[in-house]
Amino acid sequence: MLEFSVQEFEGRVARARALMTEAELDALLVTSEANFRYLTGFVSQTWVSPTRPRYLILPRNEEAVAVIPTDHLLCMQETSWIRDLRTWQAPCPADDGVTMVADVIRDCEARFKRIGAELGPETRLGMPVGDFLRLSDLIEPMAVVDGQQVLRTTRMVKSPAEVDRIRHIAGIVSDAFESLPDAIHVGNSERDICRRLQMDIIGRGAEKTPYLVCNSGAGGYASGMMSPTDRVLGRSDLLFIDTGSSLDGYFCDFDRHFAFGDMSDTVRSAHDLVYRATDAGIDAVRPGRRACDVWRAMAGVLQDAGTPGSVVGRMGHGLGLNMTEPPSMHPDDKTEIACGMVLTIEPKAFHCTIG
Amino acid sequence: MLEFSVQEFEGRVARARALMTEAELDALLVTSEANFRYLTGFVSQTWVSPTRPRYLILPRNEEAVAVIPTDHLLCMQETSWIRDLRTWQAPCPADDGVTMVADVIRDCEARFKRIGAELGPETRLGMPVGDFLRLSDLIEPMAVVDGQQVLRTTRMVKSPAEVDRIRHIAGIVSDAFESLPDAIHVGNSERDICRRLQMDIIGRGAEKTPYLVCNSGAGGYASGMMSPTDRVLGRSDLLFIDTGSSLDGYFCDFDRHFAFGDMSDTVRSAHDLVYRATDAGIDAVRPGRRACDVWRAMAGVLQDAGTPGSVVGRMGHGLGLNMTEPPSMHPDDKTEIACGMVLTIEPKAFHCTIG
Repeated sequence: MLEFSVQEFEGRVARARALMTEAELDALLVTSEANFRYLTGFVSQTWVSPTRPRYLILPRNEEAVAVIPTDHLLCMQETSWIRDLRTWQAPCPADDGVTMVADVIRDCEARFKRIGAELGPETRLGMPVGDFLRLSDLIEPMAVVDGQQVLRTTRMVKSPAEVDRIRHIAGIVSDAFESLPDAIHVGNSERDICRRLQMDIIGRGAEKTPYLVCNSGAGGYASGMMSPTDRVLGRSDLLFIDTGSSLDGYFCDFDRHFAFGDMSDTVRSAHDLVYRATDAGIDAVRPGRRACDVWRAMAGVLQDAGTPGSVVGRMGHGLGLNMTEPPSMHPDDKTEIACGMVLTIEPKAFHCTIG
Repeated sequence: MLEFSVQEFEGRVARARALMTEAELDALLVTSEANFRYLTGFVSQTWVSPTRPRYLILPRNEEAVAVIPTDHLLCMQETSWIRDLRTWQAPCPADDGVTMVADVIRDCEARFKRIGAELGPETRLGMPVGDFLRLSDLIEPMAVVDGQQVLRTTRMVKSPAEVDRIRHIAGIVSDAFESLPDAIHVGNSERDICRRLQMDIIGRGAEKTPYLVCNSGAGGYASGMMSPTDRVLGRSDLLFIDTGSSLDGYFCDFDRHFAFGDMSDTVRSAHDLVYRATDAGIDAVRPGRRACDVWRAMAGVLQDAGTPGSVVGRMGHGLGLNMTEPPSMHPDDKTEIACGMVLTIEPKAFHCTIG
């Protein structure tokens, strides 16, 4: 069963093709889970395994072709709208689909003699790089260049159906966060609390909790990316939990803080400050403004309060089939904000009370 | 806190270095989650995000150096034994650590003028390929070659502490499978059943369930890699669930079949056949034999019974920090089996009763 209408997929491909013409690409070669799922619909958990690659070749003018392992065929027929499926028996380290992919690319109309692949910032290639280099040689004189700009721009503006998915998973996690205080208390460990939250998130209908980060301490915590530990929560502790949970492939990404007992004035004022910076960030998200403007709105609030800079390097990002997607709320990111983007707004404040 | 003793990590590095000398590599460049965690100890969930890469440079003779984003520093100090940590403020698309990594590599003793990277079969590079190509240019005349053989061989034989981890997660999932029949019945959907199992696996102490695959049908099922659907289980259905769940980074990977009501003789004999083939596979796993011998033992049982070949392409694989690792139980895989390897034994039988 397709997770979206065929029209939705056709729209995605049409947008990508328009950008391919601008970028002078004859075809896109897609191998990463999020891009492959976005364009084909293919739903599979086998991406966990690095053994078998999958390839989509999306020509500018001809029908898309997926080159997949034989054991993917039924699942692909069931979940994807792509009809030209070519298979090889994997694993086959000597030639894991590379020759077949080269043949498909050589059959594409070669107006620009350029193929776009996932090479640029924030990409990960879904095939061994050794095979990628061999493929590049095989298709000469076609050149393989970066196609990330096309994929990034195509995916950045979400359809209403995608926004629904993201709203759904964010709602599930919000409800789970909301009911957590009733279930936890001083004496629980970080691990106990996170396990309870994780089960609740799954119980409410999420599919996965790939990112579930936790930290705690008296009056604050030092790192926003630790896994939960056996540390036991005590009076005056601040507990931080951040999760990227997913459903239908789409992520939420947000955190909550929980106060155990009375918080010091320093913690209260830090919380108030980050709350105000978040509001300023949300307020700055308007079509026509740029990602750096959103950063500036948040940074202004934080700098006025005299907080030192954060080590995190940005204050939010895009959200969708990846937990973090372009653009970055960063002083150098000039991406123009458009209707349909889904952005996280993540100001941070560091206070000297933390050891 | 380190998840293993420093001696364990020193042993891993010593094994890798011996193989590097054999392979004539001056250093390894490591960027993928499993290899990075294996050598450094670094525990982090941020690998879910493709925004920030991390690099380990392991020279043959000098101390290892990790080049990491600034916001990784505290988490790295907390979970890793690597002490030479160099940071940059990420994301920085113009230079996400590449120049720093090139500097570290250029400082390595260059006896062979060759750096090993994750390029070969079953690898995925943990950095954008565009940056990798730029790095390769920057460090010339050092050549970047495939280092997968070194990493694969280093990781293939597990330490007793690693085997304990794998046994622990396999035990958790085995217990959850065991108690599942009491909790499910005709009228439940695949999704209901898998959600219940997933919550139970987490409740029993697993950290993640990255792979949870399900299929069902009257008298059998067609695909072994579908996600659970809303299909409702009825009398005479066979239910298949396969999971790669993880704890402390280590995976289990096995499945169970559940019969709803009476099974036909065809299903019973298929089950019996696969059971016997599994026993033959387990029996064939002996030090000094090869992965292909294990394949042959299973294939012999299946072929004697006249089953057609499987589309899956192999009948088992290594298991560890990846859900699937070398070697493959495959007719062409000549890897010699050694004490300490952890292997999955996965014969398949396809019968014509399936539509």
